[in-house]
Amino acid sequence: MTTESSALLTDLYQLTMVQAYVDHGLTDTASFELFVRRLPAERNFLVAAGLEQVLGFLEDFRFSEQELDWYARSRNAPPAFIDFLRALRFEGDVWAMPEGTLFFANEPILRVTAPLPVAQLVETRIINILQYQTLIASKAVRCVLAAPGRLLVEFGLRRAHGAEAGLMAARASYLAGFTGTSNVLAGMRFDIPLFGTMAHAFVQCHDREADAFLDFARSHPDNVILLIDTYDTPAAARTVVEIAPVLKQEGIDIRGVRIDSGDLLQRAREVRQILDEGGLNDTTLFSSGDLDEYRLTELLGQGAPIDGFGVGTRLDTSADEPYLNCAYKLVEYAGRPRFKSSEGKATLPGRKQVFRVYQDGQAMRDIMTLHDRSCEGTPLLQPVMRAGRRLQAEPMSALRERLKAQLDRLPPSLRTIEPAPPYPVEISEEIKQLLSRQTG
Amino acid sequence: MTTESSALLTDLYQLTMVQAYVDHGLTDTASFELFVRRLPAERNFLVAAGLEQVLGFLEDFRFSEQELDWYARSRNAPPAFIDFLRALRFEGDVWAMPEGTLFFANEPILRVTAPLPVAQLVETRIINILQYQTLIASKAVRCVLAAPGRLLVEFGLRRAHGAEAGLMAARASYLAGFTGTSNVLAGMRFDIPLFGTMAHAFVQCHDREADAFLDFARSHPDNVILLIDTYDTPAAARTVVEIAPVLKQEGIDIRGVRIDSGDLLQRAREVRQILDEGGLNDTTLFSSGDLDEYRLTELLGQGAPIDGFGVGTRLDTSADEPYLNCAYKLVEYAGRPRFKSSEGKATLPGRKQVFRVYQDGQAMRDIMTLHDRSCEGTPLLQPVMRAGRRLQAEPMSALRERLKAQLDRLPPSLRTIEPAPPYPVEISEEIKQLLSRQTG
Repeated sequence: MTTESSALLTDLYQLTMVQAYVDHGLTDTASFELFVRRLPAERNFLVAAGLEQVLGFLEDFRFSEQELDWYARSRNAPPAFIDFLRALRFEGDVWAMPEGTLFFANEPILRVTAPLPVAQLVETRIINILQYQTLIASKAVRCVLAAPGRLLVEFGLRRAHGAEAGLMAARASYLAGFTGTSNVLAGMRFDIPLFGTMAHAFVQCHDREADAFLDFARSHPDNVILLIDTYDTPAAARTVVEIAPVLKQEGIDIRGVRIDSGDLLQRAREVRQILDEGGLNDTTLFSSGDLDEYRLTELLGQGAPIDGFGVGTRLDTSADEPYLNCAYKLVEYAGRPRFKSSEGKATLPGRKQVFRVYQDGQAMRDIMTLHDRSCEGTPLLQPVMRAGRRLQAEPMSALRERLKAQLDRLPPSLRTIEPAPPYPVEISEEIKQLLSRQTG
Repeated sequence: MTTESSALLTDLYQLTMVQAYVDHGLTDTASFELFVRRLPAERNFLVAAGLEQVLGFLEDFRFSEQELDWYARSRNAPPAFIDFLRALRFEGDVWAMPEGTLFFANEPILRVTAPLPVAQLVETRIINILQYQTLIASKAVRCVLAAPGRLLVEFGLRRAHGAEAGLMAARASYLAGFTGTSNVLAGMRFDIPLFGTMAHAFVQCHDREADAFLDFARSHPDNVILLIDTYDTPAAARTVVEIAPVLKQEGIDIRGVRIDSGDLLQRAREVRQILDEGGLNDTTLFSSGDLDEYRLTELLGQGAPIDGFGVGTRLDTSADEPYLNCAYKLVEYAGRPRFKSSEGKATLPGRKQVFRVYQDGQAMRDIMTLHDRSCEGTPLLQPVMRAGRRLQAEPMSALRERLKAQLDRLPPSLRTIEPAPPYPVEISEEIKQLLSRQTG
């Protein structure tokens, strides 16, 4: 279900390293963990997303003959290495936090255990998938927190960074609690509810705005949402009131209007009043245009009479924080814990588990331990793939429910778009000892 | 050459509008223009990029039977409309600024002329492709301006927003003057030079750093670039000096070292000194980690002895300006100019041409006129597709040359990463008259 399945979608150094691993017999079992080093300043927590596409990528991982030919020729790679690549499959194990799990800095959300060469080769694409969907789910959930109970539709495909970004943003934001998307292909691939209205061109190509509204309504009698800001918004709202009785006679209700520009608060108030005075109290008001969680908070805080929002560009690009500082790092090789101590980019050694400790139904703190230690609390990492086979597939509804349930158990101070003091994440004594033994 | 070719990669409203167009016979010829409303605060100019992928998309545009089946069922669309979609091809004309052209706010960079329904349907994906590649080329050229003559390699695939973003970022940054990319698939698809070193895992899986360096060098004797910041950077640089004679005896030169963390200026100076004192004056220094045009300017301004840079996350996400405020708007329908006057999002009516006026070999100003008027200067929009067929394909080398030549003719005040007073773009009297006739 990923758009691009080529095994060459990786960094060159992965292939040159793998060649050296193979040359020197470095093919023992390795474990890599993926984590986010620091939360962005504007995020109190993150939402794990993208695992389904990662597992699909691993199941399908193989080089095509065309790719191998090209690589052998262009890189002058030895035939024995090409044969090694030809036979390569992902037959390893994966543990992960299920999608919809909330997590914090330094907590591993995914662990790959496989022979070193293949565990290395899959790094680039795993990060590419997981960081983006996690980024978007973590942004989208803030919109949900900012506009509780409102209709939220993902609108960002056109300014998402390419096709796959648009598809994954639709999926990740739906996972995070959005009502649906405008992205038709995402609707087909991921079974996400679709929403749409009309664009300015529809109005522009008519000589009279009223004719545009009538034409659209008669073509889509069950879902009449009219765009009213092409020229003069209040005038268009009055036109809506004027044509409503005509359509009513034909059995057509005007379900809503959309405003896409200008001062949304001011315009929404004017339009609401015009509609109400015209007897269209049930016609809803939908708005779009440069929206994000900050603007939603502002608009709803000022009492804007808006029932639904299309959130696009700033969501799909996660505009205030366009990337996560994440890494996929070797934590164990040939049975021995591994770490790195690069300045500002150090990693913790050993395969890890994360436990979440609840008190009175509320998450109090997380504890990172080595994977085989018991601990109080609920373990968050679960086995999701064994010997290259997925263990189970969860329906999207389960992911949405998980996120909702976890949000409900989050400390209220974090359940807001305001920056909050960090949630406590403890590192177990065993990990600290391992680290001091290795760095000492 | 796009990753995703489905015609359903669009917004739902495009399909609902098209259905209404067809219902009401609104199938005359329409022209839409794509432009950027405002330059981002941190950009003095933009670089047109992505046209090749747009034209490929238009040539291949069609609905599959599977897509039509799904759409008919899930949207309850009438059979006549499904038949219309089944037969739909893009057989229109396209004018555009060739890739590598510099442009400014409000200037159309692409014009599509085709029957209204199809010109409408292709909007979403055209913006999706053009805005991202233009965004990245416009960011990458700033890195080139900030680090003239240095080796610049695009490193961002892992934190790009999905697969296609990674591929398009490699292409757009190469177009803008980068030396190459780490993205192997981009190398294959777009014939871009590939670069790569090693990752920390390669060092971590060895017991001794020196062994890791020796193993890597012996596997890749022609391209030895060693990553020296896994544990202690100066110590690793001394290790490089120690093993150099061993490798020399085997006929292997250490071409370079890479630093990926810490204070790059300080570390680069220490490492340069250690290498020079060890006789490795020809071993180059390559760095990466949180780089962008601002950091490059800072490092090189302080005299950092760094020969090449891997620029990744902040380039591929265009982190300081993660999107362009661009639009694709109807400018003419059935032979009549069209506009919209939405607050803050007004558009200029009529098919347009942009002329660039040079004086003493330097670009002085641009003039936007109606497409059929003559004007002083050089016209920037050219016919690139006629009746659905591409007119010519340009090799990447020509695009890179065009950009270089245009940069050389740009006023020096704009040819910097410092914000400069805007380049003058004039609107012709004809367009102003058209606008005042329509709004008046």
